[in-house]
Amino acid sequence: MDINMLKSTDVTGGSFSLMLAGSIGATVLLLLGTGWIAKKWKLPVALAAIVTLVASLYYFQAREVWLAFGHMPVIYRYIDWMITIPVQVLALFFFIGALTPPPTGLFWRLLVVAVITILARYMGEAGFMYATLGFLIGIVGWLYILGEVFFGKLSEISTKHGNETVQTGYFWLRLIITVGWAIYPLCNFIATYGGGVEEGRLSIVYNLADVVNQIAFGMIILAVAMKDSTSTR
Amino acid sequence: MDINMLKSTDVTGGSFSLMLAGSIGATVLLLLGTGWIAKKWKLPVALAAIVTLVASLYYFQAREVWLAFGHMPVIYRYIDWMITIPVQVLALFFFIGALTPPPTGLFWRLLVVAVITILARYMGEAGFMYATLGFLIGIVGWLYILGEVFFGKLSEISTKHGNETVQTGYFWLRLIITVGWAIYPLCNFIATYGGGVEEGRLSIVYNLADVVNQIAFGMIILAVAMKDSTSTR
Amino acid sequence: MDINMLKSTDVTGGSFSLMLAGSIGATVLLLLGTGWIAKKWKLPVALAAIVTLVASLYYFQAREVWLAFGHMPVIYRYIDWMITIPVQVLALFFFIGALTPPPTGLFWRLLVVAVITILARYMGEAGFMYATLGFLIGIVGWLYILGEVFFGKLSEISTKHGNETVQTGYFWLRLIITVGWAIYPLCNFIATYGGGVEEGRLSIVYNLADVVNQIAFGMIILAVAMKDSTSTR
Amino acid sequence: MDINMLKSTDVTGGSFSLMLAGSIGATVLLLLGTGWIAKKWKLPVALAAIVTLVASLYYFQAREVWLAFGHMPVIYRYIDWMITIPVQVLALFFFIGALTPPPTGLFWRLLVVAVITILARYMGEAGFMYATLGFLIGIVGWLYILGEVFFGKLSEISTKHGNETVQTGYFWLRLIITVGWAIYPLCNFIATYGGGVEEGRLSIVYNLADVVNQIAFGMIILAVAMKDSTSTR
Amino acid sequence: MDINMLKSTDVTGGSFSLMLAGSIGATVLLLLGTGWIAKKWKLPVALAAIVTLVASLYYFQAREVWLAFGHMPVIYRYIDWMITIPVQVLALFFFIGALTPPPTGLFWRLLVVAVITILARYMGEAGFMYATLGFLIGIVGWLYILGEVFFGKLSEISTKHGNETVQTGYFWLRLIITVGWAIYPLCNFIATYGGGVEEGRLSIVYNLADVVNQIAFGMIILAVAMKDSTSTR
Repeated sequence: MDINMLKSTDVTGGSFSLMLAGSIGATVLLLLGTGWIAKKWKLPVALAAIVTLVASLYYFQAREVWLAFGHMPVIYRYIDWMITIPVQVLALFFFIGALTPPPTGLFWRLLVVAVITILARYMGEAGFMYATLGFLIGIVGWLYILGEVFFGKLSEISTKHGNETVQTGYFWLRLIITVGWAIYPLCNFIATYGGGVEEGRLSIVYNLADVVNQIAFGMIILAVAMKDSTSTR
Repeated sequence: MDINMLKSTDVTGGSFSLMLAGSIGATVLLLLGTGWIAKKWKLPVALAAIVTLVASLYYFQAREVWLAFGHMPVIYRYIDWMITIPVQVLALFFFIGALTPPPTGLFWRLLVVAVITILARYMGEAGFMYATLGFLIGIVGWLYILGEVFFGKLSEISTKHGNETVQTGYFWLRLIITVGWAIYPLCNFIATYGGGVEEGRLSIVYNLADVVNQIAFGMIILAVAMKDSTSTR
Repeated sequence: MDINMLKSTDVTGGSFSLMLAGSIGATVLLLLGTGWIAKKWKLPVALAAIVTLVASLYYFQAREVWLAFGHMPVIYRYIDWMITIPVQVLALFFFIGALTPPPTGLFWRLLVVAVITILARYMGEAGFMYATLGFLIGIVGWLYILGEVFFGKLSEISTKHGNETVQTGYFWLRLIITVGWAIYPLCNFIATYGGGVEEGRLSIVYNLADVVNQIAFGMIILAVAMKDSTSTR
Repeated sequence: MDINMLKSTDVTGGSFSLMLAGSIGATVLLLLGTGWIAKKWKLPVALAAIVTLVASLYYFQAREVWLAFGHMPVIYRYIDWMITIPVQVLALFFFIGALTPPPTGLFWRLLVVAVITILARYMGEAGFMYATLGFLIGIVGWLYILGEVFFGKLSEISTKHGNETVQTGYFWLRLIITVGWAIYPLCNFIATYGGGVEEGRLSIVYNLADVVNQIAFGMIILAVAMKDSTSTR
Repeated sequence: MDINMLKSTDVTGGSFSLMLAGSIGATVLLLLGTGWIAKKWKLPVALAAIVTLVASLYYFQAREVWLAFGHMPVIYRYIDWMITIPVQVLALFFFIGALTPPPTGLFWRLLVVAVITILARYMGEAGFMYATLGFLIGIVGWLYILGEVFFGKLSEISTKHGNETVQTGYFWLRLIITVGWAIYPLCNFIATYGGGVEEGRLSIVYNLADVVNQIAFGMIILAVAMKDSTSTR
């Protein structure tokens, strides 16, 4: 039990607590949600639930460490991202897959690129690789994913086979991985070249970003699945 | 293991324990309940379950901190409220949504106003904003939600599409967010202008309020859903 | 990790461990059981599950405190009883409600009386009220509940609408809240007027009582629900 | 966190860890399994799951105590047995009950005898009773159960109503409670009259025995239930 | 709470955290998945879920010990393998069993050989047996399993009764237990004869191997089950 618990103006600690409770709540809602929707939607919703579940594990640990030591290296988020980012990319793949199965090769390309992207960023930030190289590989990986999502097969299937509900959902999911995910290379850039950001503030920024990037991301998938299931089931 | 555990007249500590057990029990009942009701009722009941789940997390921590240190700043409740209050407002939205979908714009207005309300109250009480300003924004936000609930679209749908069961339930839910939620600005007001209240007593008041504001709130939604499902399913 | 764990003749500690495992086992069986029975039986079985769940939480804490400090004030049971006793009374209400809905007024009377009964006993024993007054209010509350259960609407519905399975179950449930629950005012009486009982022994008595009052109580409801469901479903 | 964790030749500690993981795994499989089988088989499989669940709780605690103190009195197993042995006997009762309901009187006889058997063994070993008397009552209780299982009503129902799958399963379950359970009086005998066995070794023997007596026992019930359900459902 | 938590270049500790989160995520997905597939596929998917569940327990403990003491003897993995390896072999058995039941004798042969294989490797590495003997028995056991899987009854059933989906899945599963599992005797060999490997590095290698050997293994089974269920159900 840590005395730091009693500092009521510790906004960083509070935002960790908030994200822990929010991620757990979102996980439970998404898991329950898999029981309310048509079979084809179950996999993308389940993947979204796993994203918030893994995030809960991160926030549980981050909150504990922050309260105990007063800091929590942002680099630890990479353990979380190593799972959540690839799983989110695959959730997008299977989201479109609920319409018609995309080519298997795309599955592997997206998975491998997503893993490399996070790995390179981590190695750059942790000093296992030139920071600039890690940053650049991270950028290229992210742009590749955006390319696939905007101009590739997924986009094509959405346009051809998706009803309005699915297309609107895809629009928002795409927006999140474009605008929302831009925070990762941005903070990475500032941290590397801008002389670094204070750890506590950076944590708050990342925590707020996760409200959109992980929780809202999952809610959009669930909302589309529920709306689409009432008509098709 | 804390020696404070053995003080049998510590009513504050006892009320934290009581609310912890009560919130967990309510969560389990509501989660189970989602399996007994018609599909359209599942979302509002699930949201009510998430409210008591998040409350359980708060009470778990509050009880531990209280037993360890003998006090627990009331300000920590804002982490809980930041999630539970908006989710409850949305539960009300989807409760009416089980009859006929209200306009999407209303969803966003309710969500944003609820978040701002809690944020303003927190910033006022924590000293990040003039206490009076925070208090006033909190009041305005709450009044706006009451306005929507009493004279807005939700009320209109309930009257037009709701059977007696739904209308009675809506009456009670509305009463809770009017009378029950009045305790928040009230205690906020006393805490800010009245020279402050003793932390332990204030905790007991808030704990008792949660029996109505969170647990009874959820039970009403479940009761309506169960009653309405036997006729429609 | 406490050295008290290794005292193998500590029967009180052993009985706490036993009740913890027993309550968890009973909770899992009752929760699973809600999936095997006709819809109308789900609520009373779920309430019985919540009783043993809340009891598990109590026993978890009681066992820890006992092993750490070698005593555990019996007064802490009131936190458990404040939830389990009212929920059990309501379980009885909804048990009969599976036949035909009893009047709503009875629901509120039973709930309020059950809460007041426990509250008065607690306040008497903790010294917040004259011990004799607390004891007497507790007795009157319990007698009122017995009156409702034996001569009131519930009994009438059971006789008129219940088949043999339900009536036999109701007989046993009624017996438990008459004979089994008699232990609470009895021990309360001895503790107050008889010069007090040794804490460890009293705990064993209460623990054994819970095998009947909580676990067997739940099992009877489940057994009736299962037997009755095979014919009606 | 205990330094004993790092002793890689501590076979006793390893066997506690192994049984903890094994019991949890078995519990999850049996709980899942209740969803795959015909309704009549759900109760015996659920009881088998509760046996391994209660065992998990024991192994969790036993492993912790062993790692912390380097010993764990075997007598603590009685808390586990007080629940698991009677529940297993009842699982056998309801296993046969899936064919046709055995007489209710047998249920109570088996339950009471099983509880007395364990209670007598515990009281003998803990010194609350003459060791010889406890041992003898334990033996008689066990023989009575074997008599019922081999020559009583259960055996008769199995022969008359059971198909080959059920009869083979019953054969193996019976074998476990004859040969497998023989280890309890045997070790009890050696411990009492043979000058005692080293605690660590005795734990390994009991742990290995539980692989058969609890895990395999449950798996046999599940296997019969699954095989029989594919034909009848 | 351990200060080692803050070493952000501790790749071993990070890989334990990663595998903990990954195993939990995989377990949840596989458990959910058992609800989406045809009945015949439920058992192999459930077994795959138990593998990742048991792995989660291992990684939870391994991470804690590593952070507390800075090392974690690789030998502790044997507790995990003693359950996961036999369960995976049986998952393969029941995977093929979804087509047509293989002979029961094969079940026992695979189970016994898998247990002996792990036991011999452990005894060799822990010094309870000549290292060379343990290593050799381990090799023979593994080769026997490969023989059964490539040339035995399982392979025959796959060819005769399996559709393309099942055969492709079987190809990949077989590849994992051939190439992926080769890491165990290899590392065992290097550890025994090559003068030993540094504990932290070896842990990273084993952790990465588990991504394929446990998580991908389970995902393949789930993928086949889902694909095959859409056509047959």
